[in-house]
Amino acid sequence: MEEQIDLVGKAFVDHYYHLFDNDRPALSSLYKPSSTLTFEGHKIQGVEDITAKLISLPFDQCRHVISTIDSQPSFSGGIVVFISGSLQLSGEEHHLRFSQMFHLIPMLEGNFYVQNDIFRLNYG
Amino acid sequence: MEEQIDLVGKAFVDHYYHLFDNDRPALSSLYKPSSTLTFEGHKIQGVEDITAKLISLPFDQCRHVISTIDSQPSFSGGIVVFISGSLQLSGEEHHLRFSQMFHLIPMLEGNFYVQNDIFRLNYG
Repeated sequence: MEEQIDLVGKAFVDHYYHLFDNDRPALSSLYKPSSTLTFEGHKIQGVEDITAKLISLPFDQCRHVISTIDSQPSFSGGIVVFISGSLQLSGEEHHLRFSQMFHLIPMLEGNFYVQNDIFRLNYG
Repeated sequence: MEEQIDLVGKAFVDHYYHLFDNDRPALSSLYKPSSTLTFEGHKIQGVEDITAKLISLPFDQCRHVISTIDSQPSFSGGIVVFISGSLQLSGEEHHLRFSQMFHLIPMLEGNFYVQNDIFRLNYG
């Protein structure tokens, strides 16, 4: 069971950052009207506003490199996933270290949506 | 409502790290048999094992200094809280940067317990 949770968490993380780095508008499919994103302390709710925020971030091209993924079962079939990694922006040498958490809620057919999403850059 | 969530998150965080820094065995009161802690990738379940892990950490005295607290409502009255900060060990000059998340579940009388706890040091 633990292993299954880890596999689901990793599969979600791979999917999420692949979309973020290659087709950012498609991230809208992972949120619901009840979803909340807190991005660097700025709280945003609902699919449209969250998607607009993610698309408007001031870098056109980026690549997420994942360092760690920790997954745990939450309640009622949900999963919490905690990620650390770095964000590489196109044309820039240095990387931005970040931490992010997702609370995933099950839908039909084994899919999950993001109920909670909190992102923070790690300042040294 | 948002403000209430932020207040509850901050009150929990203050209480948690105060206990951690001053009376670590008392942290057991904040966990339940269903609770899971992932500490630097090591997964531990249940009140006794989590408390034993926290007590056995290789520093007797420490002080948590909090940089950011982000709180969001999860499901059924729960709250997810994401913290960044630094850990100052007694007798050491440098600080260890960390990120941590808690998923808090309501109990009677307005109290919460920790269902999910994930801790990671931030390596530069």
